[in-house]
Amino acid sequence: MPRYRIDIEYDGGAYAGWQRQADLISVQGAIERAVFAFSGEEITLRGAGRTDAGVHATGQVAHFDLSRDWNDDKVRGALNAHLKLAGDAVAVLAASRVDDTFDARFSAMARHYLYVILDRRAPAALMQGKVWHVPRRLDADAMHAASQRLIGKHDFTTFRSVQCQSQSPVKTLDRLDVRRDGDLVEIRASARSFLHNQVRSMVGSLRRVGEGAWSADDLEAALKAADRRRCGQVAPPDGLYLVKVDY
Amino acid sequence: MPRYRIDIEYDGGAYAGWQRQADLISVQGAIERAVFAFSGEEITLRGAGRTDAGVHATGQVAHFDLSRDWNDDKVRGALNAHLKLAGDAVAVLAASRVDDTFDARFSAMARHYLYVILDRRAPAALMQGKVWHVPRRLDADAMHAASQRLIGKHDFTTFRSVQCQSQSPVKTLDRLDVRRDGDLVEIRASARSFLHNQVRSMVGSLRRVGEGAWSADDLEAALKAADRRRCGQVAPPDGLYLVKVDY
Repeated sequence: MPRYRIDIEYDGGAYAGWQRQADLISVQGAIERAVFAFSGEEITLRGAGRTDAGVHATGQVAHFDLSRDWNDDKVRGALNAHLKLAGDAVAVLAASRVDDTFDARFSAMARHYLYVILDRRAPAALMQGKVWHVPRRLDADAMHAASQRLIGKHDFTTFRSVQCQSQSPVKTLDRLDVRRDGDLVEIRASARSFLHNQVRSMVGSLRRVGEGAWSADDLEAALKAADRRRCGQVAPPDGLYLVKVDY
Repeated sequence: MPRYRIDIEYDGGAYAGWQRQADLISVQGAIERAVFAFSGEEITLRGAGRTDAGVHATGQVAHFDLSRDWNDDKVRGALNAHLKLAGDAVAVLAASRVDDTFDARFSAMARHYLYVILDRRAPAALMQGKVWHVPRRLDADAMHAASQRLIGKHDFTTFRSVQCQSQSPVKTLDRLDVRRDGDLVEIRASARSFLHNQVRSMVGSLRRVGEGAWSADDLEAALKAADRRRCGQVAPPDGLYLVKVDY
């Protein structure tokens, strides 16, 4: 059966998350409906990252199989037309035929996330639901310096949701960068895979550093404690974007 | 009476425009209500630019008078608290006491607008209502080169809404830049003042250049004709932002 890869952008604020759930509106469900609308086939879409409710994507990747061969542009165009018709906040950026060994979830070599903090006194108007509003001025340089302590292979239990279903809390974090761009503080995180809520947990803890409440040593001690109670306030989903998946 | 200047950001998609209108939700009305909520005074807010329905601002400026002296931070904080409570998509970035010769509208020396085109096949998902989606690839360099023909003092009748109430169609355009940033084409326009729909009319005409339908000469001929019928399709309000006002 022909397999299709799609690259997807969505506004997570309109959805109860990526994953299809009974009686809830999900990104996966919206795209599966759009595939059915143009092809008449009921498919199960598999995504690279099962983003939570409110989490956005500019570069989510997913795959599905159809019995028929379709032109790539036709797949992208038809999906976007049906998504628009349904009022969905989902856009298919690209569609392509892939080998049937390609698996959006298991073939992924790296996932890249961006977290955006709006760091100013005034709340968000234009970026409502798209950023975490932190009214207190953060020291982004201190956050960046501290973030380097989390790079590498560690037991990330401190930065893991209690609901996380991963078999092991040990992950390898390849990149964690913090930089200021005017009133925005942008945090970029890359790894082969992340634990549930790992990025939001790290961001919430880095905020403590940015406020001056924690030193880099405190952050490292929280990591080494491997104790969920040592995590800072988990950052809200609003500021989180899945930006890219490498294969 | 103490006069206050406020700098404002808003999502124009939630409003029937800046200006207060009976039975319609306006940005001016939302802020006037917030001023009343914290001060108990009924004021008339005067803005630098009367943006249309759907047009956004990151740097609108307005002024109002109160009988009482308030601390700047208190004004900003109280307005934001009341705007948030009312569910408004308006944020007051700064508030300051100003001399009573300051007039947000008439003291303005320059107004700066940004227009954002999302130039890709897929429609906007995350930036819905915040950009103009143009699926056909635009030549931003050609648009920039042509845009320079509009710089200077001209009769801008071609790029003026028939509803424009300005006494003269002659305006001096100080800056008109077009540059690509990935899938975004950003157009920046600066002038002491603009005619009604002037930026959106120029953008719509520049799109014709970007598509290759018009040459720079065609754009200049349209300007010189001083004939509204020679204008390209007026660009939608979604992509327009009032970003700064100089005094």
